[in-house]
Amino acid sequence: MNKAERQKQLVARLQEDPFLTDEELSEIFAISIQTIRLDRLELGIPELRERVKSMAENSIDKVKSLKKSEIIGELVEMNLGKSAISIFETLNQHAFEKTRIVKGHHIYSLAESLAIAVIDAQVALIGVANIKYKKPVYSGQKLVARAEVIRQRGEDKYFVWVKIRVKSEEVFRGKFILVSFSDQESEGEIH
Amino acid sequence: MNKAERQKQLVARLQEDPFLTDEELSEIFAISIQTIRLDRLELGIPELRERVKSMAENSIDKVKSLKKSEIIGELVEMNLGKSAISIFETLNQHAFEKTRIVKGHHIYSLAESLAIAVIDAQVALIGVANIKYKKPVYSGQKLVARAEVIRQRGEDKYFVWVKIRVKSEEVFRGKFILVSFSDQESEGEIH
Repeated sequence: MNKAERQKQLVARLQEDPFLTDEELSEIFAISIQTIRLDRLELGIPELRERVKSMAENSIDKVKSLKKSEIIGELVEMNLGKSAISIFETLNQHAFEKTRIVKGHHIYSLAESLAIAVIDAQVALIGVANIKYKKPVYSGQKLVARAEVIRQRGEDKYFVWVKIRVKSEEVFRGKFILVSFSDQESEGEIH
Repeated sequence: MNKAERQKQLVARLQEDPFLTDEELSEIFAISIQTIRLDRLELGIPELRERVKSMAENSIDKVKSLKKSEIIGELVEMNLGKSAISIFETLNQHAFEKTRIVKGHHIYSLAESLAIAVIDAQVALIGVANIKYKKPVYSGQKLVARAEVIRQRGEDKYFVWVKIRVKSEEVFRGKFILVSFSDQESEGEIH
């Protein structure tokens, strides 16, 4: 592959998944990290941390249903009421000691938090969730979660799908039904 | 209700739910907390903290799939491979600031942890979970989670139901499918 072709593909890959590290890109293209960095420089693509930071700044202020400190992971894209993306770097503290497999509830929490954040309402609670863990996640792996509001029923009921990937592989998917409340209503039963 | 009748009912209520506080009992019987304490003394029933402690000591050593420090909540009953009970006192830190409603993922984590703990295997992972939050839980409320292994399929697949109550009211139920692994196998896909 010549350089022009490689740089074209590099841009395409980063449009598809903006959260690829230089290391991951170097594996994908089977070239050195140094070459990836030079390619990014020539193409004017900032490093991952900068890409995430600028995306995060635009995203977090849009959220209505959660406080900033209540969001799990780093929110990097937010089309309120439609879709959202967050990323989460798993650490040893999130994993079972015996196996280094990340505990399910940390993955679930990332998904649940994103499902709530994407809702365009002041208060949103989970009513029902159907979830599937598709592959074990090991500590150190980076989770990229994408939430999509599939449909809204009535004024207050939302169907949200969340898929979580490690690199390009899906490790978790969840279907959530959420109910939005005004604060006064929140005493009531979740139907 | 005379004293003998009340004490008989008190014993019955505590057999049904050993995690009732003196305050809750005083509400149930519409008598003072002081009277409840005297009744317990006469009946030789220790206070809640002591009841929980002695149940917990017998339970935690039976668990194979989790380390003590990995169990969420306080495990108070454990029939390994069959059923288990844990309790969890919710605090402000577990709740949304706006509404004081406990975040779903804390309730989920209690359920997931108990579903894993009850499995009679060295390593157990969640494959699928179908969950329902039935009523909002407010910070300060005490959760009592009961897990039951409903059936086992083959050598390695377990169906576990977890129900969580606040006092006598069900606030959450979850159906979990778990897969047990030996450590070597845990690289594989969860089917």
